Amino acid sequence: MAREFSETTITDAVIERMATTPDPRTLEVLTSLVTHLHAFARETRLTVPEWMNAIEFLTRTGQTCTDTRQEFILLSDTLGLSMLVDVINHATGGTESTVLGPFYVPNIAVSPNGSDITNGRRGQPMLVESQVTNIAGTPIAEALVEVWHSDDAGFYDVQQPELPFPALRGTFRTDERGRFSFWSIYPHFYPIPTDGPVGEMLMATKRHPFRPAHVHFMISAPCHERLVTHVFTHGDPYLDSDAVFAVKHSLVNTFAEMPAGPAPDGRTLDRPWRHLAYDFRLVPS
Amino acid sequence: MAREFSETTITDAVIERMATTPDPRTLEVLTSLVTHLHAFARETRLTVPEWMNAIEFLTRTGQTCTDTRQEFILLSDTLGLSMLVDVINHATGGTESTVLGPFYVPNIAVSPNGSDITNGRRGQPMLVESQVTNIAGTPIAEALVEVWHSDDAGFYDVQQPELPFPALRGTFRTDERGRFSFWSIYPHFYPIPTDGPVGEMLMATKRHPFRPAHVHFMISAPCHERLVTHVFTHGDPYLDSDAVFAVKHSLVNTFAEMPAGPAPDGRTLDRPWRHLAYDFRLVPS
Repeated sequence: MAREFSETTITDAVIERMATTPDPRTLEVLTSLVTHLHAFARETRLTVPEWMNAIEFLTRTGQTCTDTRQEFILLSDTLGLSMLVDVINHATGGTESTVLGPFYVPNIAVSPNGSDITNGRRGQPMLVESQVTNIAGTPIAEALVEVWHSDDAGFYDVQQPELPFPALRGTFRTDERGRFSFWSIYPHFYPIPTDGPVGEMLMATKRHPFRPAHVHFMISAPCHERLVTHVFTHGDPYLDSDAVFAVKHSLVNTFAEMPAGPAPDGRTLDRPWRHLAYDFRLVPS
Repeated sequence: MAREFSETTITDAVIERMATTPDPRTLEVLTSLVTHLHAFARETRLTVPEWMNAIEFLTRTGQTCTDTRQEFILLSDTLGLSMLVDVINHATGGTESTVLGPFYVPNIAVSPNGSDITNGRRGQPMLVESQVTNIAGTPIAEALVEVWHSDDAGFYDVQQPELPFPALRGTFRTDERGRFSFWSIYPHFYPIPTDGPVGEMLMATKRHPFRPAHVHFMISAPCHERLVTHVFTHGDPYLDSDAVFAVKHSLVNTFAEMPAGPAPDGRTLDRPWRHLAYDFRLVPS
């Protein structure tokens, strides 16, 4: 039937119209998308004002995105879709992955190992020392390590355009023994941005916006799957209610509290500091 | 389980997190949305690059929207969702409804009945004469009638910002006998805009972008359901493959070809013209 569709015939009509799609994977994904989108509308008996609200919500979500803010990723994160895609595509045997989140910035210049990436942001000093290996434990030299995290009030540099950029964000290369290290400040739990459409959704559902404290890592090396993950701080009050469902047991680690005095790299601290020693294992691609 | 979700437990975890939603309808819609969104990702084994493509597609869709272009409505239209929502909410007994489309502009000033709304656009003259009644056939006076349509090359005024606005677009009030009328030009079939994300989707599926020629009507009156519909031109080559699935038999009508000479309203035409005589019946709200 080519016109005058009913609630049930329209879904087949749309799928039939897609039959000319040359790429079978595109056809498969679009067929499933249309099937579920239509089933959602039928199941909920979606009204015209609700449909218009959804159109406006999605439009605002797109228009909230900038070079440094990705509201659609945040929406995907808060609806658990990002974590589901992570689990579906999870490569086993190496360090576990988790969501990318909305604050990743590509192409940050490489800094020498041991650098301080605070760029003037104050907080409790934190030293991260790590080794990147393959799943057999062999070090991976020249791996590209991108790190980013929030300050102790919960803000990323891209949320503070009035302050120097980049900060609490850096790129490193592993040395011949697969090691990298940097100084930063100890992160804190924080609310995801609630001044956009995702905030409206959290408000409507009375969900809290908090994520447990963590440091983001993205590690890339030839012949290995790129690893996108966080390391969470042990004892955080939001580990069991992360707003984006991203916590895995193996990613929660102690950021050891160390007394004032010399650090392993020779720096001397005048007050207590945190030490994260955590190694990453990449799976072959 | 509050962390370390599997492919199946994450859906329940997200729904459980929404349990605090005060409004039961919001909870119902979000629960169905999350269920279908997750089922789609599981069913297709959605990959991380595909997820990222989807994020970028939706972002571009939002950012393509302006005051006069609604790309998310166009996406909903081309995926058959708009027509499905129309069918679900269809009030029976009156004139049938169809999609709103992306080119509606609110708050156009009211013109006197019989006005010419071409504002300089050339084409075959068209007279529309109509009566608005309730389902018992009683005329509805003072109904607000908004009309809009494309020119004979298929463009709406909002797609031609270099030309005068509004054109082929007007608002009328029915008189004491429920009548309204206006002069315009005979519309033509046309492609929906293909220079945005929806165009990418049509290209990927090798679907044509054409809509059969039509005039949009939105009719509002107190105590009646607002009617959003089109009248399509009989004989159009795209009636059976409308890019947005919006054709219903009852909405296809003859725009009678009339010889040069006097029109019913006293105007004299120096060449053949089109005459649409079509009445609308509103259902009570």
